[in-house]
Amino acid sequence: MFGRTLTRELSPTALRRSLSTASGSGLKINSDRLLETLHRTCEWGAAHRYGEGPTETGMARLCLTDDDAKVRRWLQGEVEKLDCTVTIDQMGNMFARQRGSLGSPAPMTAMGSHLDTQPRGGRYDGILGVLAALEVLRTMKEHGFRTNYDIGLVNWTNEEGARFPKSMCSSGVWAGAIPVESAWGLTDIFNPAVTLRSELERHGFFGQVACSNDPATGYPLGAHFELHIEQGPILEEAGKSVGVVRGAQGYRWLTITVAGRDAHTGTTPLAARRDPVLAASKMIVASNAVAKKYGALASTGVLKLPLSSSTNTVASDVTFTLDIRHPQDRIVHAVQEECLQAFADIAREDGKGVSFDWTLDTDSAAVEFDETCIKAVQDAATHLVGANKWMEVTSGAGHDSVYTSRHCPTAMIFVPCKEGVSHHPEEYCSPADCALGTQTLLEAVVNYDRTRGERSAL
Amino acid sequence: MFGRTLTRELSPTALRRSLSTASGSGLKINSDRLLETLHRTCEWGAAHRYGEGPTETGMARLCLTDDDAKVRRWLQGEVEKLDCTVTIDQMGNMFARQRGSLGSPAPMTAMGSHLDTQPRGGRYDGILGVLAALEVLRTMKEHGFRTNYDIGLVNWTNEEGARFPKSMCSSGVWAGAIPVESAWGLTDIFNPAVTLRSELERHGFFGQVACSNDPATGYPLGAHFELHIEQGPILEEAGKSVGVVRGAQGYRWLTITVAGRDAHTGTTPLAARRDPVLAASKMIVASNAVAKKYGALASTGVLKLPLSSSTNTVASDVTFTLDIRHPQDRIVHAVQEECLQAFADIAREDGKGVSFDWTLDTDSAAVEFDETCIKAVQDAATHLVGANKWMEVTSGAGHDSVYTSRHCPTAMIFVPCKEGVSHHPEEYCSPADCALGTQTLLEAVVNYDRTRGERSAL
Repeated sequence: MFGRTLTRELSPTALRRSLSTASGSGLKINSDRLLETLHRTCEWGAAHRYGEGPTETGMARLCLTDDDAKVRRWLQGEVEKLDCTVTIDQMGNMFARQRGSLGSPAPMTAMGSHLDTQPRGGRYDGILGVLAALEVLRTMKEHGFRTNYDIGLVNWTNEEGARFPKSMCSSGVWAGAIPVESAWGLTDIFNPAVTLRSELERHGFFGQVACSNDPATGYPLGAHFELHIEQGPILEEAGKSVGVVRGAQGYRWLTITVAGRDAHTGTTPLAARRDPVLAASKMIVASNAVAKKYGALASTGVLKLPLSSSTNTVASDVTFTLDIRHPQDRIVHAVQEECLQAFADIAREDGKGVSFDWTLDTDSAAVEFDETCIKAVQDAATHLVGANKWMEVTSGAGHDSVYTSRHCPTAMIFVPCKEGVSHHPEEYCSPADCALGTQTLLEAVVNYDRTRGERSAL
Repeated sequence: MFGRTLTRELSPTALRRSLSTASGSGLKINSDRLLETLHRTCEWGAAHRYGEGPTETGMARLCLTDDDAKVRRWLQGEVEKLDCTVTIDQMGNMFARQRGSLGSPAPMTAMGSHLDTQPRGGRYDGILGVLAALEVLRTMKEHGFRTNYDIGLVNWTNEEGARFPKSMCSSGVWAGAIPVESAWGLTDIFNPAVTLRSELERHGFFGQVACSNDPATGYPLGAHFELHIEQGPILEEAGKSVGVVRGAQGYRWLTITVAGRDAHTGTTPLAARRDPVLAASKMIVASNAVAKKYGALASTGVLKLPLSSSTNTVASDVTFTLDIRHPQDRIVHAVQEECLQAFADIAREDGKGVSFDWTLDTDSAAVEFDETCIKAVQDAATHLVGANKWMEVTSGAGHDSVYTSRHCPTAMIFVPCKEGVSHHPEEYCSPADCALGTQTLLEAVVNYDRTRGERSAL
């Protein structure tokens, strides 16, 4: 039933194309199985219902919660059914490997993304990428298709950084960009007694292999392909079905703490105050103005007052986050500098002034993906939808591929999501686009596998 | 030891004056006993240590917590030792009554304030007023002094409105300004399962008498005098020892809820956003500008984002409080109107806009106290410190006296507090000023008692 319902939702064109046996690989993914698997596994962490339909909920599957552990154990079982070799590293990253026909010891061509979500997230961000990879492996297995080189799937731990505040956390450790000790030590934002490592151990996902790309101690990859929803409105507005991602914009996350002095709101003249709420508000407004000036993004997603705050007391201090993004690193830095200068002026502006301090929590440089991988995706997209239905894009969000690209050829495939909405319960990618993205992933990795062969044959 | 220490801290002038037997009543309060009692009872709820000294902490004695219940039971025992009749009403307001010499059934002349504090409060706000009243009763008792009319003490419940968010809550119910059902139903700001009534009942402070000024069912008062720290810098800066309070400024508390839409910060262009954090920040900045324009006060003490907020997600909604104050009601209303108009403009300003809603939580009109009561305080102050050492002031904060003044002659006495700081752990009123304020309270109620006699003799 469910499967048929989904099939009916596929647009005739997409259906014909994605199910066409005339594709480069000669394989076709099973879109019903893909969608049924995706929505069934989303029962682990389903939350924030917005409609009556069986799949009309968002997700709250935070990293290494019980629900996340359940879907991880399920994934391990599924890939083992496909005779994949499963390796788990010391950050809980899950690697599933299907042998290639050459029996080469070279690192596998990986298809990776993440199964964790935001607290008010959707059903596609990350999840689609992992389950598309599973569908590709299932399709190859059932057709007895072997790639030349080993191929496999990766589920990266704590990509969202929502429960343990470090985004793309474990691909960052794998890439050597984040010290494993600091990642292990990240604490649950609502329970300082719980660390990422203690949760890895509690659920049995603290693996044997080092979390590293080092062939000697870790788990190197031959390439990394990631299918992901766009999370923005560009493809939809341009009327394109596939986004070939050339790279990712740079971004920096800062935490700013503004210290004032608590005082009675009724008896303390404005001139006598040290009001951190007023100052923080001005800083947030200023950061928005600076971002606009540079055509960049500046966002405050978290803002906290002391629990003891009350209506008739000027708060003692305020903490807020600042997320600055732009495709060019120099612009990201310029926005940060200009914001901090503005904050320093604002701190002196009202009453007796406030003091402020800031920390850099995440620094993700702008990235350009690998030309060979990009070519493999371009060829797949042209084959499936024609040259006029795909476009090149730059990722606005950070992804695990940003870190993998430092140590292996990497590229990403975007598919449209409704109104560009993500990190929201109503995040939605149509069954047709999920299927098309998955077929594109399959064709791209097959294309890349062939070029690996050609290159090694040289 | 402790007592002597305090005595040494008394300035020679204040000591001579406040201990002078040449005062109008012929009585002198015991400043050592007053201060020792104050600091000993502040061990119930002491918090936020800021120095090494035994009394160098603030207070966190929120309404009807276990610590508040302890000091209440202690107070009941102390006034019973003085042969006072104790009555507790259905809001837990505590009335202690000492018989006057005339045996008149007329309502007592009350000395009242509150024993509850802010979460990060000090040792004097409210507490001084109640313990000064106790010291006055003790002094009269030990000297066998009888007023003509009954005189007594009141401890008003939940004046701060910090735990159960309604300030001057129970004097408001007593005055008929707040429906008792809504006051009973107030929930603990951190635990919706706990109500003010459930805590009254848990601690045995849900009394028999109606919380009302109605002689038939409640507990009417003949007059209400309240000693309180100024909570502002005016007396200190003017070099005055006593503030004769002519009235209180009006204020309104609003809660504003701004609704946007959560979205990914990296992939959602500014133009496509509905960002409630940016809008709320602009609203707070705007309210400050409007208040400055009118010479009024506008303050945001509480600002909350959803618990699910994260650095790379635009929040779904923001709630913040707005506290508007001015001695003239028309200015308070004008500031509110202009703020709401500004908020409406701001809501349309950025991206796809936000929506906002607001509620009026507290509306306290400007108040003018009773001339006879004010005269009684003026005469006491002139007698104790001389005409050039006291001044008339308007209260910037709300007080229980604001509500009692609606139904009985009322006045207040202010004493300086260091740097005008209150609602802060370091809130400080010198032993000399505590003693002087208490002596002024004693003289004021004796003066008033005599005028009651004269008037009834006419």
